[in-house]
Amino acid sequence: MSAQAITTDSLGYLARQSIRQGHHRSATSNLAPGYVQANLAILPASLATDFLRFCQQNPKPCPLLAVSSAGDISLPSIAKNLDIRTDVPRYVLWRNGEAMGDLEDLRTVWREDLVTFAIGCSFSFEQALLSARVPVRNIEQNHNVSMYITNIPTQAAGPFSGPMVVSMRPMKAADAIKAIQITSRYPSVHGAPIHFGDPSEIGIKDLDRPDYGDPTEIRSGEVPVFWACGVTPQSAIRSAKPEISITHKPGYMLVTDLLNVELEFR
Amino acid sequence: MSAQAITTDSLGYLARQSIRQGHHRSATSNLAPGYVQANLAILPASLATDFLRFCQQNPKPCPLLAVSSAGDISLPSIAKNLDIRTDVPRYVLWRNGEAMGDLEDLRTVWREDLVTFAIGCSFSFEQALLSARVPVRNIEQNHNVSMYITNIPTQAAGPFSGPMVVSMRPMKAADAIKAIQITSRYPSVHGAPIHFGDPSEIGIKDLDRPDYGDPTEIRSGEVPVFWACGVTPQSAIRSAKPEISITHKPGYMLVTDLLNVELEFR
Repeated sequence: MSAQAITTDSLGYLARQSIRQGHHRSATSNLAPGYVQANLAILPASLATDFLRFCQQNPKPCPLLAVSSAGDISLPSIAKNLDIRTDVPRYVLWRNGEAMGDLEDLRTVWREDLVTFAIGCSFSFEQALLSARVPVRNIEQNHNVSMYITNIPTQAAGPFSGPMVVSMRPMKAADAIKAIQITSRYPSVHGAPIHFGDPSEIGIKDLDRPDYGDPTEIRSGEVPVFWACGVTPQSAIRSAKPEISITHKPGYMLVTDLLNVELEFR
Repeated sequence: MSAQAITTDSLGYLARQSIRQGHHRSATSNLAPGYVQANLAILPASLATDFLRFCQQNPKPCPLLAVSSAGDISLPSIAKNLDIRTDVPRYVLWRNGEAMGDLEDLRTVWREDLVTFAIGCSFSFEQALLSARVPVRNIEQNHNVSMYITNIPTQAAGPFSGPMVVSMRPMKAADAIKAIQITSRYPSVHGAPIHFGDPSEIGIKDLDRPDYGDPTEIRSGEVPVFWACGVTPQSAIRSAKPEISITHKPGYMLVTDLLNVELEFR
């Protein structure tokens, strides 16, 4: 991303300032419309190489937008003047793969060996779908997208492994074709779907019982369309059981200064 | 198309010379691999404007590659030194919408008011699919693709109207996603599919009984994928009942000097 795309008065910057000052502690959807929001993973430097390899080997569920050097609280390529310890509205602290609870501030747990990873999120392609008049049920109905653990293995790297997690959006076939075209243009936010139609082909037993998120109504004439999901790396991190790791609380994302439209073919 | 892309020794040129000299009178698949083959329609000038409007309004079934001026036997933008009267291996002559039989040469029926239309054909995108390792059943089994009359209306222009005709290729969902990505890059040879899945949604009653071409086996785990088809304009011409019209015999196409790869995003 070129420096001139990022100005101090981007809506993303203003949103992060508001979060840092404690004025915004709720979920980030509808905050800074048009700006890229990212999944967050923070790991000790000793695991950084393996996790980078995991992301490189599994780009559809784990599209990396930015990585910090150890101890660095900034990610200048995507967010001006970032303090990753204070600029996300809610975090989850994990120890040995178990959730220790939510935090609103990482300053008390921060360590000089922590590396920050920002990973693309489907919010960006959902905006592109809506802009092209492709209805997105989870947005229309204001609930979380349905997510499922599949039987598709990821390519393991060190302790990071596990099945791919997918998100599902039901669509008419003509809209699904448009959605495949549109999301193909956004490889850094999961890209094209990995499957549509029969859920059992990817190991999903019951669409009405998602493993994460809320159930989604599928109407007559609609097919379920499945995208690789950013919960996959979180799940791989949990199974790797690092001594310490930190993620965003789902829905409480890192708001960046990148525009969604800047992710096209990037 | 820039002039330098066309040389006298293109495989397309050599194929047309062979046809003109009477050495090749069979179907053109596998002739001049890598070169664009086109659907042919020849109409009196009095109908040319309406037919051009019909193509402009229905670009997915009727992607125009080139149009001649009245009486001109050449199409220099797509085929060097073309004589459209002799360079296609087999033609069908129509009078008032009824087939009068096949011809191997148009010189005895040619008129100075005839206008030639070259229309994109799915051969080009099938090659792109095979190059990306997406299996294409009708090519694997060496039979004609299955084609169906749908209930999707075209936008009428003057006497030209009628339902869209589609071709169908069965694929696994993951291959169908790739096929949507690949064919989206080729708008001048029908582009992305117009439907997949339930055939009744587009008015097709029985997949085992295509309206044109051969039946196609659909295997377990495959979905039918439907593309707009170049038979649509032929069908619109028949229903317009022009005093005279000429088409290629299906499978006996106009071989051009364009490369299939040159049609990307064109």
